Amino acid sequence: MDKLYIIKIGGNVIDEDEALADFLKQFSTLSGRKILVHGGGKLATRLADQIQVPQTMIEGRRVTDFETLRIITMVYAGLVNKTIVSALQSHHCNAVGLTGADGNSVLAHKREHPITDYGFVGDIDTVDHSFLSHLLEQGLVPVFAPITHNGKGQLLNTNADTMAQEIARALSKTYQTILVFTFEKAGVLTDVKDENSVIAVITRSEYQKLKSGDKIFAGMIPKLDNAFRAIDEGVNRVIIGKAADLVELINGNAGTTITHA
Amino acid sequence: MDKLYIIKIGGNVIDEDEALADFLKQFSTLSGRKILVHGGGKLATRLADQIQVPQTMIEGRRVTDFETLRIITMVYAGLVNKTIVSALQSHHCNAVGLTGADGNSVLAHKREHPITDYGFVGDIDTVDHSFLSHLLEQGLVPVFAPITHNGKGQLLNTNADTMAQEIARALSKTYQTILVFTFEKAGVLTDVKDENSVIAVITRSEYQKLKSGDKIFAGMIPKLDNAFRAIDEGVNRVIIGKAADLVELINGNAGTTITHA
Repeated sequence: MDKLYIIKIGGNVIDEDEALADFLKQFSTLSGRKILVHGGGKLATRLADQIQVPQTMIEGRRVTDFETLRIITMVYAGLVNKTIVSALQSHHCNAVGLTGADGNSVLAHKREHPITDYGFVGDIDTVDHSFLSHLLEQGLVPVFAPITHNGKGQLLNTNADTMAQEIARALSKTYQTILVFTFEKAGVLTDVKDENSVIAVITRSEYQKLKSGDKIFAGMIPKLDNAFRAIDEGVNRVIIGKAADLVELINGNAGTTITHA
Repeated sequence: MDKLYIIKIGGNVIDEDEALADFLKQFSTLSGRKILVHGGGKLATRLADQIQVPQTMIEGRRVTDFETLRIITMVYAGLVNKTIVSALQSHHCNAVGLTGADGNSVLAHKREHPITDYGFVGDIDTVDHSFLSHLLEQGLVPVFAPITHNGKGQLLNTNADTMAQEIARALSKTYQTILVFTFEKAGVLTDVKDENSVIAVITRSEYQKLKSGDKIFAGMIPKLDNAFRAIDEGVNRVIIGKAADLVELINGNAGTTITHA
């Protein structure tokens, strides 16, 4: 099977023009099939402030009312997505910006929560792998904003990590998928204060040992649990590390690689 | 050759939720290959007011400074484009929202004007007909926001009428293209005050007669000159009429059809 990289960049990179430009330049040099999934960054919060739409966060998640959904659609699918697409084009990377509504590529339903109403937040049901593989086989590079739809005319705000993971899972039938999450740190660290304590490879048995020995920062556990879930679902491997190290992450010279065996 | 409809909707329809919903429902029922090009409407001006970015219009054209380009990208490529795409999806019309940067589909250059600096405004150089025909042959429906790029990382604000016309022209090599401009009036009128005075068909020789007999409202002349230019460049015919009459326009039962002979 052909390799496919699904790479997620977080909000912190999007907020810094230079860091973003460097990341996109590195991304454009990766040969072969690839998909980019981006977060939103602080731009949505800034715009909400400017037009006086109060924002509510519950456990780090944005409650998405009608006005907030409009803001998110403008910032994520408009400004951030098209800025990335045009920058990639300048590096001869033939990007196509998408939301889950485009090509009906990512269908979701509005989250039902017993206590909290998160508003227009979507949990993913299906990813159309045939639409995406058509694009990939034409040499195109899908660039996803973290927005899906319900097929009934409703756009939905969706977590970018989850979106990357679900896309990787769906495409694992057709490709050998490598899922790359970039974040602030150099990888999974044994000492959270020491950026040089990156664990290069974590297998499942190793993970159990690390967890029981309290060698992993608690904040990393949900990320790692998700990574192993992705692997159970057919993803070949998951890489976690700094956006600035993208090429090195892909080459296995930086970050943490999570694999089955 | 297969037929292809390129349909432009103007800002006035986009500003009215019900009119837009009705238009999109009609659009989704048209069988065969089709492309939608939308304008921006008043939303961009409203957002500019809210975030206090002064807007300058010169002869009805928006001067697009850096901040205005950001607003336009948010509103046109984000809010308007994705609202249309998700609505079309709810009618089982498999829309894909695009700007000219996506798939490098519409390349432009920044307008150079001897007197006025229009800012980030783009004049179109090339349309990638192979990218678009790939999408069309997969049954996808491209939906264009009026934004292009220069291939060097710069997005550019571009007139939606021109964009529709250039796309139609480029695809005339591969398809029998029918270009439909929807606007406020029922078609080309002999009496501007009488919506029943629509001229059903205008050929080139007829157009000369109407012009020399002063039977055409001056405001229509640039539109008609453009329509005949499109026909000279390979477009099969141009239809002008009301968005609310879309199906009837396509069937030749409403509006004005402009043809060569």
